[in-house]
Formats: sequence, C-alpha cells, structure tokens
Amino acid sequence: MNIPRSSSPRIVIIGGGFGGISLAQKLSKKDVQVVLLDKNNYHTFQPLLYQVSTGGLEPDSIAYPLRKVLIGYENFFFRLAEVTEIIPEKKILNTTIGELCYDYLVIATGSKTNFFGNTELEKNAMAMKSIPQSLNLRSLILENFEQALLTDDYHERAALMNFVIVGGGPTGVELAGALAEIKKGILPKDYPDLDTRRAQINLIQGGERLLDAMSEQASRKAEEFLEKLGVQVWKNTRVTGYDGKTVTTKTDLTFESATLVWAAGVMGATIKGLDAKELIAGGNRINVNEFNQVEGYPEIFAVGDIACMQSDDYPRGHPMMAQPAIQQGKHLGKNLIRLLDGKPMEPFSYFDKGSMATVGRNKAVCDLKRIRFQGVFAWFVWMFVHLFFLIGFRNRMVVFINWVYNYVRFDREARLIIRPYRRNYSQFKD
Amino acid sequence: MNIPRSSSPRIVIIGGGFGGISLAQKLSKKDVQVVLLDKNNYHTFQPLLYQVSTGGLEPDSIAYPLRKVLIGYENFFFRLAEVTEIIPEKKILNTTIGELCYDYLVIATGSKTNFFGNTELEKNAMAMKSIPQSLNLRSLILENFEQALLTDDYHERAALMNFVIVGGGPTGVELAGALAEIKKGILPKDYPDLDTRRAQINLIQGGERLLDAMSEQASRKAEEFLEKLGVQVWKNTRVTGYDGKTVTTKTDLTFESATLVWAAGVMGATIKGLDAKELIAGGNRINVNEFNQVEGYPEIFAVGDIACMQSDDYPRGHPMMAQPAIQQGKHLGKNLIRLLDGKPMEPFSYFDKGSMATVGRNKAVCDLKRIRFQGVFAWFVWMFVHLFFLIGFRNRMVVFINWVYNYVRFDREARLIIRPYRRNYSQFKD
Repeated sequence: MNIPRSSSPRIVIIGGGFGGISLAQKLSKKDVQVVLLDKNNYHTFQPLLYQVSTGGLEPDSIAYPLRKVLIGYENFFFRLAEVTEIIPEKKILNTTIGELCYDYLVIATGSKTNFFGNTELEKNAMAMKSIPQSLNLRSLILENFEQALLTDDYHERAALMNFVIVGGGPTGVELAGALAEIKKGILPKDYPDLDTRRAQINLIQGGERLLDAMSEQASRKAEEFLEKLGVQVWKNTRVTGYDGKTVTTKTDLTFESATLVWAAGVMGATIKGLDAKELIAGGNRINVNEFNQVEGYPEIFAVGDIACMQSDDYPRGHPMMAQPAIQQGKHLGKNLIRLLDGKPMEPFSYFDKGSMATVGRNKAVCDLKRIRFQGVFAWFVWMFVHLFFLIGFRNRMVVFINWVYNYVRFDREARLIIRPYRRNYSQFKD
Repeated sequence: MNIPRSSSPRIVIIGGGFGGISLAQKLSKKDVQVVLLDKNNYHTFQPLLYQVSTGGLEPDSIAYPLRKVLIGYENFFFRLAEVTEIIPEKKILNTTIGELCYDYLVIATGSKTNFFGNTELEKNAMAMKSIPQSLNLRSLILENFEQALLTDDYHERAALMNFVIVGGGPTGVELAGALAEIKKGILPKDYPDLDTRRAQINLIQGGERLLDAMSEQASRKAEEFLEKLGVQVWKNTRVTGYDGKTVTTKTDLTFESATLVWAAGVMGATIKGLDAKELIAGGNRINVNEFNQVEGYPEIFAVGDIACMQSDDYPRGHPMMAQPAIQQGKHLGKNLIRLLDGKPMEPFSYFDKGSMATVGRNKAVCDLKRIRFQGVFAWFVWMFVHLFFLIGFRNRMVVFINWVYNYVRFDREARLIIRPYRRNYSQFKD
C-alpha cells in the first residue's frame, strides 16, 4: 500500500463517516501517523440523502473529499480501499489494495441497510444509504412518471405512481414528506398531461407510532403533518415481501407499486475477523467498553453506528445517528493521545442534544433536552443545525442557496435523470 | 405516445439543446402544439462540461430540467425518447417509445464526437460531450491518482499521471488548462505522498495553431498561457491510435498514457430517414436553406450544430457553437409563426458576437467584433457571458458560488468519485 512507517505510532481508521473524520481531525498535528481508509473518496452527509433522491439538492453538495479532511498534515494518508479482513493477532488488515499493519485500529464503518434476511426484498427494494443509491432512486422516481405517461393501462399507471416507503423513522418520514411536496408542487406543472392527483405516497410503519425514538408529541405531530400533505400512513403494518410489483404484508393488505423504498432498518457493517459472536451485540454492532475499546483487543476501537456501548442509560447502545458518532470520534481522539502519553483513558459519556426530523416546508419536529416544539420554528432550527454540521464551507453555501431557492420558488431543480436506473420493471399487465 | 391532437398544428422538436429550447420558448403561447423530444430529461450546458470533468462544478448545476422550459404552457408536451427514424413521406417519426406524427418537424439533435472511423480510438478514448461522459472522466482522473499511489513501477505510475488531450479547440484548451491548475493547486496537497510534479498534461493539435477558429493573436496568447501553466503543447501532430496504453501519431512520437481525451472533432448527429447523401454536407450536417429548411422537405427544418446553412460568409455553414444554435432557434420560431400566418419567412442572418476561450485563473482570450483582448479582463468577460447564457436562476447562483469559492480558495471541491469508472485498464507492466 506504499505507506511508509514513521517513528510515530500508526492509527488506522476504517471509514470516513462522522465518527472517522471527527477522530481524524482530533489527531491532526499530534505525534501519530493517521491512515484513513474508505471505499469512497468522499464523506457522505447521510442526513440529507433523501433530498438528493427527491431532486432538492445536488449530490456533490452533501459530499466532501476525504483527502481534504487532514489537508496539510504531513503524516496523514488516505487510501481508497475496502477492508476485507482484520487479523487482530498479527495487527494486520487485508484490503482490496493489499495488506496494511496497524498499531491502533479504529473501526468506523457505520451501518448498512438491514433487510432482515429477506432476499426478495433486498433484490427489489430501493435503499438510500449512499449517494449512488440515492441517485438511483431519483432516477427511478422520475422514470416512473415518464413511463406513466406512455401507458393506457390503468393499473400499470397507478402502480408507477404509487410509492411505498417502509420504515417510519426519520428517513422514511422525511422522504415521504418530500415526495408529497413534489406531488403537490411539481408534478402538476411538469406533467400537465398526467392526472398526478392519483399519485400515492404510502408510509408503512411496523410499530405503533412514527419516529418512535422521539417523544409521543413529535410522533403525533409528524403524523399530522404527513396527513396534511396527503401521505397515507399505515401503522402496525409489517411488510413481508415485494416481487417488484406487489408489496405484501402480514395481513391481507397489499400494494401494487413500482417503487418500494426500504428504510426500515440498519445494521452494523462488520468486517470479517472481528465478527465473532461474542463480540457482536444486537443490530450486528460491535460491543465496546466505555473507552470505545473492543473487549479483549486493547488496540482496537470502534466508534459510531458500528459501536455498541451499553450503559444504564443506553442498555442497547447509543442511537445510530450522527451525534453519538461525532462525540465518540472526538472523545476517542483525546483518549488515544492520552493512551500514547501513558495517561489513563476517560470514559465516554454521551451528551444528548436531542433529535429532530423534518416533514416538509415549515413542518418539522424537535425534541431538545428540556423543550419540544414543532412547526415553522422547528423547521428553521432543523435547517440551521443541518447547515452547521454539513462539512465544508462550499457545501454549506450551495445547500443554503438551494434551500432558499426551493423555498421561495416551491421548486426542486435537480429533477434530472443523469444516469437512468434500468430496473427490470416488467409491465404490470402481465 | 399518448399526445392528443389539438386543433393547432403540431411542431415536433427533436433535441433540447440550445437550438431546441430557444425555438420552443419562442413558440410559447402561440397557437401551436409543441412536442419536445430528447433522450435526456434535461438540457446540458455543454460549454462547462470540462469544469464538471475537473471537479470545479457539480453536474446538476449545468443541467436544466426540460419540462421546465415551457412550464405553464398547456399545449406543450415533453417526451423522454430517442428518435430512431424519420419517415418524411408519412410525416411520422419512429421513436423508442412509439410512433409520432408531425405537421412541422425541427431537427435540433446537435453533434456527437467524431472519431473519423477509428474504432480503436472510439473504444479507448474518453469523450466529453455529455454529463455522464464528463463524470466518467472525472472519476477516471481521480482513480488514476489513487492507483498511481499504489504502484512501485515507474512506468506505470508515469502513464497513470500522463494525460493526453487530443484537439486544440476550446474544449481541449480549457480542459488542459484546468488539469494544469489541478496539478499545481490540488495534487500536491491531496497527494503529498506522490511526486505529482511528474504529472504531465499534453495537448495535441493536428494543425498549425491552437483555437484555429479564433484570431492568431488569441491562438498565440492561449498557447503562452498554457505553457505558463506547464501544459506541453504539440502542434502539427496527428494522433493515429490508442490501445489504452500507447498513443501513436503519424510520426515516431508516442505517449504512454492511461488517459486519452478525444476533443478533436464533432459531427452532426443525423437520424435515419433524413440522412440521404444529397442532404448531407461536410461534417455530417444536414443542408438547409436560409430559412433553416431542409431542401425538398418544406415542413422539415434543422437548427444548430446539425444544420449546415451555406452562405458567402460561411461557405461551410456556421460554426458548431451555442450562438448560431440560439440565434437560429429564435429566428425559426418567428419564421414558423409567419409561415402559419401565411406570411413569407425571413432569411436567417448570423450575428457573430465573437468567440472566447478560457485557459485558467485570470487567463482567457476574447475575439469580439472590433476588439481582441486577453488576460484577466477577458477572463471576467468569459465568466460573465457563461453565467448569462446558463439556463436557470438556481444554476447561475450555484455556479457563481462555486466560481467565487474556487477562485478565493484555489480549490475544486467536486473531486468526487461518485460512480467509479471501471475501465479495463490493465497494468502497464505487462
């Protein structure tokens, strides 16, 4: 891999998400060699992926080149690579571009979509965990409407304009809201020759309420917002299959749809060699102690979605969101320096800043520590917070410009089929 | 195709480039039905494609949804389709989505890359005529450097960092300049562990001088600018082949390179059924009279790159650039209305606003009608003109923000490998 050994210890970070880059930044200009590995050459700001899928933002505005993260720091090395195996006994990684040894290893691989073993769903559903996936969904949504124009078959047209989103967490709620706004504000203008009032957006939630990690007040209000926008919410409904045409559920309820978006679960993106049963907690996450250390491997750490740090307050680990990843990354950065200085590490404690989700224009829900609020102000807070955490000044400016434009003009101009998503969508007539 | 016949005559426009949309806009709210066909659902601002390839602009900022072009005009229909054949006798088009009849037909299909029949070049060279092609080139450039890091083989690394651009017109000059700026401003920071001083940018021109459609003064100055930036310019050099490793020329001169960009020629993108020899002029363009009418087909017209309107001033037709397309589109719009009103059409006359090309930061060349100038002022004029002709307010804002950022920070943040371009690039060692 052509990375020279320096006199400083080598810390290898797998993954350039929130956890990985927060950690890397803390290590800058300390007496360590930092090697960052990622399968992409950019950081993805995942909370805004749904806006890429729905044409509100260009993909490049929520991506940030990973080589810029520690720009100017001489002992920083980035490699575009996927890690295929960890061999802790030898302190070695196998990757797609060769072998690499480490002194300290930090796993920050995040999470991936969890289809709970349902291969039919995995094959036919759209996921939204990466920029290419989000662009595929953007293309498919637009292609559906272009195709709906061409058919005289009532059922086929209905299925093409019928969107099923599975999962009532923030991703599902935000995507459903954005689609509803497109239906209302853009489709009638773009497709005057199509009866777009017939387009349907269905949001399916397995449990009792939407946004079940938030307060009941937020759940109730989010549902109210969605219904105002015309989203059909199905609670207590479990999707069991999707063959590309028909969505089946545990009951008799079915949906004829050309598009199923799966936002119903994520799981830790573990790596071979460190995935032994005794290491893994619920959700396929790696168990770590209060120092983000993997039990039994003093030189291996994990941060973010992949790490499960159980405590009294968080018996199943911290929520798989940006904030715990950022805080753990920063904290581990300090701890690694302490460790190298021969000082004892300090336990991590999570500061819950609250959580929020947006449903649409002027419609968001916020649960902060002491205060809960919904509506216009929540929406502005949501935007401000997302702009603040977005990486890179240029990205912030471009996203800001887009939001102002979209707000003032009720528009989303990135409704572009740059790369058609050729799905084997057979005609519904057959 | 589900387009209802109205009482107004149907004008079908093939192609949503500069010519097609300028024409469509002129027809808005006249008593005609406008059907616009394009294989993409967006207009591409081709003059800035090279900035997408070099990470200076996001692709979405130079694309504009075609359905927005005549938004709000009821008798406008857009269809995402490729025309496979014109049957003038029946006034019918065959397309990828079915048959369509027309009363008037306007061919505005533009041009495509001309490899002059060299299939080996066509297979191995990168072209830059569309957004996906430009994104492929962006990925390949970045992948080359990632790969160069991994090899110990001197020749392989050199070939990966050796860029050959064939064609000394505006596209070639602008791309070479942008790559040289990347080499100077970004590579040393992004790849501190690679000796990027060894990266080479070669610009190959078949003729005597670069920008040979412009003044000698502009050519000379452009070459001077390029040399200042470290681009190696090869004049009077004809490339004969490229097997993916070695670029051959008419002489003994060869280049070992992993990337050849072909910007050495375009040709009209004709359509079957209207491509009979007697209709076609040099450069595979369709001969039209002074009303943009195809000889022998009173109801068929052609505008833009595809149209060859020979005159005393332009014995080989107008230059294949945005300006003639825009002017012809607008003019034909007026003429079609006159024709429908029973008035005689007016001959087209081209108003040459001049031409310009940019080499890099503060470095551009302008030939206007009475005045020629180069350098900083020319560069500002170039930017202003391109912002002015860019379609869409949001696009202008986003491009402007990017340019200001890139200028102030000497940066290009869209250096993202969103979709890897997996070329069969075999190791140079073999």
